[in-house]
Amino acid sequence: MTATIASIKAAKRVANFNAGPGALPVPVLERIREELLDWRGCGMSVMEMSHRSHQFESIIADAEARLRHLLAIPDDYAVIFVQGGGSMQFTMAPMNLALPGKPVDVLHTGTWTAKAILELKKGIPHNLAASTESDKFARLPRKTEMKFSEDTSYVHLCTNNTIEGTQWTEFPDTAAPLVADMSSDIASKPVDVKRFGLIFAGAQKNLGPSGATVVIIRKDLAERADKNLPTLLQYRTHIKEKSLYHTPPTFAIYVIGLVLEWIQDLGGIAAITKRNDAKAKLLYDTIEESGGFYSCPVAKPDRSKMNVIFRISGGDESKEKEFGKQAATAGLVGTPGHRSVGGMRVSLYNAVEQSSVEALVRFMREFRRTHGTHG
Amino acid sequence: MTATIASIKAAKRVANFNAGPGALPVPVLERIREELLDWRGCGMSVMEMSHRSHQFESIIADAEARLRHLLAIPDDYAVIFVQGGGSMQFTMAPMNLALPGKPVDVLHTGTWTAKAILELKKGIPHNLAASTESDKFARLPRKTEMKFSEDTSYVHLCTNNTIEGTQWTEFPDTAAPLVADMSSDIASKPVDVKRFGLIFAGAQKNLGPSGATVVIIRKDLAERADKNLPTLLQYRTHIKEKSLYHTPPTFAIYVIGLVLEWIQDLGGIAAITKRNDAKAKLLYDTIEESGGFYSCPVAKPDRSKMNVIFRISGGDESKEKEFGKQAATAGLVGTPGHRSVGGMRVSLYNAVEQSSVEALVRFMREFRRTHGTHG
Repeated sequence: MTATIASIKAAKRVANFNAGPGALPVPVLERIREELLDWRGCGMSVMEMSHRSHQFESIIADAEARLRHLLAIPDDYAVIFVQGGGSMQFTMAPMNLALPGKPVDVLHTGTWTAKAILELKKGIPHNLAASTESDKFARLPRKTEMKFSEDTSYVHLCTNNTIEGTQWTEFPDTAAPLVADMSSDIASKPVDVKRFGLIFAGAQKNLGPSGATVVIIRKDLAERADKNLPTLLQYRTHIKEKSLYHTPPTFAIYVIGLVLEWIQDLGGIAAITKRNDAKAKLLYDTIEESGGFYSCPVAKPDRSKMNVIFRISGGDESKEKEFGKQAATAGLVGTPGHRSVGGMRVSLYNAVEQSSVEALVRFMREFRRTHGTHG
Repeated sequence: MTATIASIKAAKRVANFNAGPGALPVPVLERIREELLDWRGCGMSVMEMSHRSHQFESIIADAEARLRHLLAIPDDYAVIFVQGGGSMQFTMAPMNLALPGKPVDVLHTGTWTAKAILELKKGIPHNLAASTESDKFARLPRKTEMKFSEDTSYVHLCTNNTIEGTQWTEFPDTAAPLVADMSSDIASKPVDVKRFGLIFAGAQKNLGPSGATVVIIRKDLAERADKNLPTLLQYRTHIKEKSLYHTPPTFAIYVIGLVLEWIQDLGGIAAITKRNDAKAKLLYDTIEESGGFYSCPVAKPDRSKMNVIFRISGGDESKEKEFGKQAATAGLVGTPGHRSVGGMRVSLYNAVEQSSVEALVRFMREFRRTHGTHG
């Protein structure tokens, strides 16, 4: 089980379009590797540190400070790191924020809001303020379609739908707090945090590895919760204890800090937005210019810059399978669509390089040339 | 943010006696480092893999298989990897296993069972089958002291008490299932799994990094739970989906697999037990032979081989503070006791090397020579 320095040098890398966990920036991985047995001279890996050591306290404080800076998070919002992914938030959000007898309104846009609804169905009154299910979720609800309850506890939405390939750009004005599942587009573009009561995001798409969830919550909302709830499932516990009520996922938080530092080094949210816009434009343009060989089923204004879904030859499954296989052989990994919907899906999270997308569109043109009837 | 191979070579390491997260085996860290940018030729880090990829499926299956082999886990037990640490299990165990109107019996032995009781107090009938609080938890309950309810749902205990320095070696015979918090001694010695209904352990002491919890559960017990519980908080969800209902803490599970492989390479549980016994013996002998300069408050038969607690000069806080400081300067990290009890605590988890303990006892003898009145 002994590693040699020679083998470390030999790392070969693929273009990673996985939907999450997904690509991480190479400079972040190199830094992790450099520090793996000895974090900045302390003689330990981050994985081996007490979560109550001054070293780890500096790591978690640094991650929080960078996120606050990048997203311009106001002081009346807490930033906490918890476990359980976005899925645990489908339970924690209603447990903490639903008021007795006041329904939760949901803007239903696909698989992830369906999972949130599934948990609400276990005893929380709720209401679909809008749903685009009848359009197979290939678009987002228009403002004129939304019908909010008068006494709603909060409004839930998913800002980017990884499976359906839609992404919100404008958010509804609601009297009640907006609760946003930003698992798949946090820190990929600017966000006006004060428009939201609660933002949560599993880290494993734009921020770091799986196992840590970032929660940004307006502090007063955390006080809605019954103090008799399980201690770990109350936001106030983690706010009060600065995410150290129990042992947090220390290594994942460390990697999040490094990813945020990498975004800052690139030029912050403005720079990452520009980079993400360019990647998405290149890919959607390639689809649009394919003479119908590639087609995106999503309404143009609602297309996601994070997850680009498309079909080949109007949904030819054997060609789609072939595409995924040949792409992987060419070092372009993770292009098959979610198993529930088929087709292709290319995820363009923060860490995916422009050069990876360029390689992909070259492959797409070649695949079209060899497999297209539109020539 | 660029790592150089030269800086990787320069890693200097300390002797790590942290109580958790704690030491990891150097060969495991070296393997992680080797594979960090390219796991076995796939061109990605484990952190960047889809949890539904065949690569990750092989990683999680391998970790489970190694644990099953090492602990001889019978087939009617499920092994799952969840999030939330031992603390989440204080909520999940009663949610899933408490039967209506049938109390949970607790063997109360310190801080960790107190935390379990805190969650039970939120609406689950429970009963202290025994408590050693009146002896400041410096010993474990004797069998003759235990009074179990006739209709108990299950009996909860903590097999190793990290703060009080006690460890169970013999377990009570109970008609109801025994639920064991093994967070701090799992895989450090043999365990007769079929004596237990549920075993859980946060990984960050003997198995890997924080952020993953190993749960070993007799499958029929998972069926006790109300299907209306939050999906993520039902054991049956994770059993049915083989820990992939949602994105698991992929990297932590990978590291657990490597740690288990390292234990197997050493010679399995028999070898690690021998190694752990030798480390504990050396440290306790050093305490016993110090003429009272060092003293362990724990009853001899109940002394933990994982967390050795001791006082200096009968509890001289200034000497204890000095010891922790000088030890750290000498590269012996993590010796101060838990902030709630003071004194010293040396954790001897699986990955702590005999040579580290030898260095510590040399330091202890020297410290006694320079600070002892018993000199």
